Amino acid sequence: MTDHGHAAGTYSQRLARELAASRHLCAGIDPSSAMLAEWGLDDSAASAERLGREVVAAAAGVAACVKPQVAFFERFGAAGYAALARVLADARAAGVLTIADVKRGDIGTSFAAYADAWLTPGSPLEADAMTVVAYQGFGSLEGAFELIRQHGKGLFVLAATSNPEAFAVQTAVRGDGRTVAQAVVDDALAFHNPTDDHVNSVGVVLGATLQLRDFAITTDAPPAKPALPVLAPGFGAQGANIADAKSIFGGLAWAMLANESRSILAGGAAGLSDRISARAEAIAQAV
Amino acid sequence: MTDHGHAAGTYSQRLARELAASRHLCAGIDPSSAMLAEWGLDDSAASAERLGREVVAAAAGVAACVKPQVAFFERFGAAGYAALARVLADARAAGVLTIADVKRGDIGTSFAAYADAWLTPGSPLEADAMTVVAYQGFGSLEGAFELIRQHGKGLFVLAATSNPEAFAVQTAVRGDGRTVAQAVVDDALAFHNPTDDHVNSVGVVLGATLQLRDFAITTDAPPAKPALPVLAPGFGAQGANIADAKSIFGGLAWAMLANESRSILAGGAAGLSDRISARAEAIAQAV
Repeated sequence: MTDHGHAAGTYSQRLARELAASRHLCAGIDPSSAMLAEWGLDDSAASAERLGREVVAAAAGVAACVKPQVAFFERFGAAGYAALARVLADARAAGVLTIADVKRGDIGTSFAAYADAWLTPGSPLEADAMTVVAYQGFGSLEGAFELIRQHGKGLFVLAATSNPEAFAVQTAVRGDGRTVAQAVVDDALAFHNPTDDHVNSVGVVLGATLQLRDFAITTDAPPAKPALPVLAPGFGAQGANIADAKSIFGGLAWAMLANESRSILAGGAAGLSDRISARAEAIAQAV
Repeated sequence: MTDHGHAAGTYSQRLARELAASRHLCAGIDPSSAMLAEWGLDDSAASAERLGREVVAAAAGVAACVKPQVAFFERFGAAGYAALARVLADARAAGVLTIADVKRGDIGTSFAAYADAWLTPGSPLEADAMTVVAYQGFGSLEGAFELIRQHGKGLFVLAATSNPEAFAVQTAVRGDGRTVAQAVVDDALAFHNPTDDHVNSVGVVLGATLQLRDFAITTDAPPAKPALPVLAPGFGAQGANIADAKSIFGGLAWAMLANESRSILAGGAAGLSDRISARAEAIAQAV
């Protein structure tokens, strides 16, 4: 247990403090078989746990949050989930914000059950926020909304992502004239949680390698209040330059979380703290 | 172990045999807290397992497949996954086809890790097929394609779903003039697995309560060869009448799987076999 995280308050209040302290790095926890091999570890749930706990320890007080990619734990079945639960418990103890990168999506009681799994206090998989997909409409996420308000949790909804195959879907034009991605951004901004002061409980995922105007997503407006959190993959190994963060995200840059995984994980446990500190510093300078 | 399932062959070959025998019922395994209460069970992973194993036993040789809604297991964390693994093992032993309703979606090695989790022989969570979401494009599912071909597994990609909030997204028009849902159907049909003879390894989810023409999805063409499997929620408790199956799905009806959960689960373990048999018979008459 450390006091790095100042864990009092809701997710959005804690995230606001991280951002106000110029902490914008979201440290990825991606124990793929290839990454475990780079760490000199065997391909097992125990190794995934070890990598995850090392990242949490190194990220505490330096990164804004950690983001486990849950697919890399799910491949080990129940053992993977037990490992992930221990990584999340470490993060809670260290006061490090957690975004469960699960990209869950469903409707009604099924989606509500996913929200229960990840956002209910006391759940073995409790995180502060989770990533979600709204192929079935923003309203399909309704099952999480009351839980977010009640327990001070958060969502990141996939809006515009950087893989080339995503473009045709996310730029498709709805009957109301908006692109699919633009409507996600609008709907996230319209979500209202009375306890959100500086940042919104519901944020979006926007790829840093994209031209957001292609998706009709506006970045030149002044920051909304509360600001829309933007989880941004694409910096580092994927090719976007952190020095361009302000020009890419404009008015959205203040509440941007730069997700980096490969750039901090490659090289193994040795030097992990130094790499996280260096990336956190570079991002703080740019935003 | 029973000999109901004739478990030899790939998923698509086994599914083709089910359909040829007029088995079109996909029995849902939905251990929500409300359903467990209806069964007189406490809200625990052990209860979810019990419900699941009862459904598998009652479905063997009667339903075409079972479909666990994984959200209702995930809410119990590792214990839920251990329970689900035992339900899936029962189904394998009984020769019952399994569709893991996980609606996973991601890109690259992350999506490949989800495919590993659910479709790799010997994985604790091995199923025959899984439901997936292509908000990041059909190509984002690439990480499963080789695994499907190699191990004879399957996917169901969400295309047009019946919740009202889904309409605006799934009818959005892409740059190539197709709706989002229509492009999913086209892309699923274009997937080629040399060992698919009667039915395709990749199918789609289409809600039975929808007017598919609103999504520009064609149902009046003769059945494709191999036929496109259609997983259809919406019959039973959700309001679509199974007697209308042929008019709803047209040329897609031959490979339609009618998913029913509430209509077979409500009432508890007593009478479960009778309800499954009755629904299976009604569906066989209609299709």
